[in-house]
Amino acid sequence: MEFGRRLAGITDVLTGDEIGDDYGHDESIGGLLTRPAYVVRPRTSAEVAEVLTLAAAEGVPVTARGSGTGISGAAVPRADGIVVSFERMNAILEIDTENHVAVVQPGVTLRELDERTAEVGLVYPVYPGELSGSLGGNVATNAGGMRAVKHGVTRHNVLGLEAVLATGEVLRTGGKYVKASTGYDLTQLIIGSEGTLALVTEATLKLQPRIRHTATVLAPFRDVTAVAAAVPTVVGSGLAPLILEYIDALTMAAITHTADLQLGIPDEVRDSSQAYLVVMLENRDEDRLTADIETAGELLTGLGAVDAYVLPGGSARRLIQAREQAFNTGKAAGADDVIDTVLPRAALPEFMAAATAIAQAHETFLVGCGHAGDGNVHLALFQKDAERRATVLRELFAAALRLGGAISGEHGVGHAKKKYFLELEDPAKIALMRRIKHAFDPAGVLNPGVLFDAEPEGSE
Amino acid sequence: MEFGRRLAGITDVLTGDEIGDDYGHDESIGGLLTRPAYVVRPRTSAEVAEVLTLAAAEGVPVTARGSGTGISGAAVPRADGIVVSFERMNAILEIDTENHVAVVQPGVTLRELDERTAEVGLVYPVYPGELSGSLGGNVATNAGGMRAVKHGVTRHNVLGLEAVLATGEVLRTGGKYVKASTGYDLTQLIIGSEGTLALVTEATLKLQPRIRHTATVLAPFRDVTAVAAAVPTVVGSGLAPLILEYIDALTMAAITHTADLQLGIPDEVRDSSQAYLVVMLENRDEDRLTADIETAGELLTGLGAVDAYVLPGGSARRLIQAREQAFNTGKAAGADDVIDTVLPRAALPEFMAAATAIAQAHETFLVGCGHAGDGNVHLALFQKDAERRATVLRELFAAALRLGGAISGEHGVGHAKKKYFLELEDPAKIALMRRIKHAFDPAGVLNPGVLFDAEPEGSE
Repeated sequence: MEFGRRLAGITDVLTGDEIGDDYGHDESIGGLLTRPAYVVRPRTSAEVAEVLTLAAAEGVPVTARGSGTGISGAAVPRADGIVVSFERMNAILEIDTENHVAVVQPGVTLRELDERTAEVGLVYPVYPGELSGSLGGNVATNAGGMRAVKHGVTRHNVLGLEAVLATGEVLRTGGKYVKASTGYDLTQLIIGSEGTLALVTEATLKLQPRIRHTATVLAPFRDVTAVAAAVPTVVGSGLAPLILEYIDALTMAAITHTADLQLGIPDEVRDSSQAYLVVMLENRDEDRLTADIETAGELLTGLGAVDAYVLPGGSARRLIQAREQAFNTGKAAGADDVIDTVLPRAALPEFMAAATAIAQAHETFLVGCGHAGDGNVHLALFQKDAERRATVLRELFAAALRLGGAISGEHGVGHAKKKYFLELEDPAKIALMRRIKHAFDPAGVLNPGVLFDAEPEGSE
Repeated sequence: MEFGRRLAGITDVLTGDEIGDDYGHDESIGGLLTRPAYVVRPRTSAEVAEVLTLAAAEGVPVTARGSGTGISGAAVPRADGIVVSFERMNAILEIDTENHVAVVQPGVTLRELDERTAEVGLVYPVYPGELSGSLGGNVATNAGGMRAVKHGVTRHNVLGLEAVLATGEVLRTGGKYVKASTGYDLTQLIIGSEGTLALVTEATLKLQPRIRHTATVLAPFRDVTAVAAAVPTVVGSGLAPLILEYIDALTMAAITHTADLQLGIPDEVRDSSQAYLVVMLENRDEDRLTADIETAGELLTGLGAVDAYVLPGGSARRLIQAREQAFNTGKAAGADDVIDTVLPRAALPEFMAAATAIAQAHETFLVGCGHAGDGNVHLALFQKDAERRATVLRELFAAALRLGGAISGEHGVGHAKKKYFLELEDPAKIALMRRIKHAFDPAGVLNPGVLFDAEPEGSE
């Protein structure tokens, strides 16, 4: 307990039975609970720096934790390691209405930020759905969500960071500006690095004007191929959809059932539709919105939609909320894994055909939905046998890579998808990423086992 | 000449008098001409890889060259080095109208790309002004320009790269998708690295729907403080300007004189205005555009503009073209240096006040314009004495950093601003960047002397 006492000299520490189960897992399906040896709850970046300096000196693994809502296991600690929980670094430091930025500590949740920005007519547009998620976690996984088709993902909306290296150095990267060409972009490198390069202790976020009026069209299509074929035209129309989601018929049935939501779609339309496209538009002017949503409806029926329903505000909100809960709905229904492969969006039909063939070959059940405008497919897998499930996952990821895609669009690699990442990704890129990791974290203490296998001791 | 013969076994090589002066400089003011020992003009990434492998083995410096329109000296080679000119890798490989991306080789110019995308109703929205610039050069400097306030800079519009490392490995990063959370973002790391990490041999670019209708308001203001105060409201209005530029009175006089452009502003207005704001809007619907430009005019006069003039299409186009040429106008007028410092946009008045004081203290003349929406200030310095000029630059950059800004918004550090970068930037960040550089380029052959001082031999 010598090490614990040294930690306690720096900041608040929990050990042994003081450590609740929540510090040992995230929301991954089938993720194991690993209780860490220590939980620290720092209040300042200086405390984080001291913790990391000590951990690096002693070779003790460190895992950062925000709200623990991740689903790839990147917040699952090592049994001999430290969890740095940011629950006490949860202040919104500034809402700057002149520069249109927010400065937040990593423990701030999306909900808290949204409430504060709403007060001044601004919005942080990244919307991964789970509003209890922390901004620190969002930065670590490069969180995405439904509004990415218009506003991009976390990467496109974070302007700067304060980050602590495993060397104990506290860096400030970027700032309250959208552009710079002054050395390497460390902000972008740290975003999405899943806690393996640095611990983020502050983020400067770009805010947008909050647009008041939204309207939603729901368009049933014969199948997902027909949906995918419609997407480029919708994106190219200049209507600039805020949301452009596809939902397959089974997922639609499940999420509307769970949410007890009646969409008023006639039985014969529902029975002949295997996939839905949800298009949400926004406009600062209500009349323009009304005109645009009509245009969108006409466009969609012209593109082969069986029909196009303009959803009333309440139903639209509830449908989007239900869609946000698709992961939880799948989990509750007994899904054995989820993937969020990203593809060139025009490759969606080909990927779905490949996925169907893979599923049939391995007697696996797949249902899904996804960010159609981004080519980001979310599939829930039902296959109890771990070995078969791994085969299905490997074949799905290989198909995505063959079509020019990537393993994860927004969930991250973490522990959960690591073996596929290491197996399928170009070894030269993996080797380069490991060299970059070493440039940041020579002692290899930041989230070892995430993205890469932990290095054998003394290997570098 | 043994080395030259080995290069010639790989690809087309120029040596000695075959090497024209153009390979030895870019457009930097006062940049020296350095003729390289070798110019290679590869046709494939495989040839680039062989050249880099040989260069790394022999420790010969390598500098990439696109169109040579840079203004920070990053394309200026070493006398003992190789210039890799991408003039023969200049094909537009694909315009993909389903995924809305273009795939280009580095030697393609912005003008060529714009002509091709126009044919299919799409646009690559990054617009650094100099249309003869190459996409490879744009990627290397993270080029920006006037449309960044709406569409971001190069970084936000490049989805993937093919890049050759100094190890001879050819990597593909990213792809035809806007989001991924699958390991470190190598695309973003290479963008803006000024040829020091890898040579880019292909880029996948995000295209947007080309919006037909634009309109422009020109608003004279009493001074730049009044301009800056108006900017947040314009950005927050939801009008989503495509361009939001300020131009000081002297720069306006110079560029309109050079372009022989009459804007029809009454003398008494011109005489009482020290700064102008140019707001360009776009809309796919002409009626909406007309309504929006009226709203913008009212907004601007409400925000203190002396008046607001809706410019006819031809004048607007010529004013924007004249503004694009501001750098060349300054250069022709005898400017001794230019800077493109970026700041939080609300800090613009404070920076301008500091700049005025610095200029007066050192008897230096400053004129400028800038991307007001982005806080990106472009100043031309007139000061013949090199030492005084260096003092002025150092003080200007220090003021920008004190206000939360960065040395360069879009021009890059190159050779031209390196000494200030190394002097003023956090040493811990410089050291980390050097470690990253080493992870990519262990032999230190990629553009040594750019960003960092070249390392003494055998230092690593």
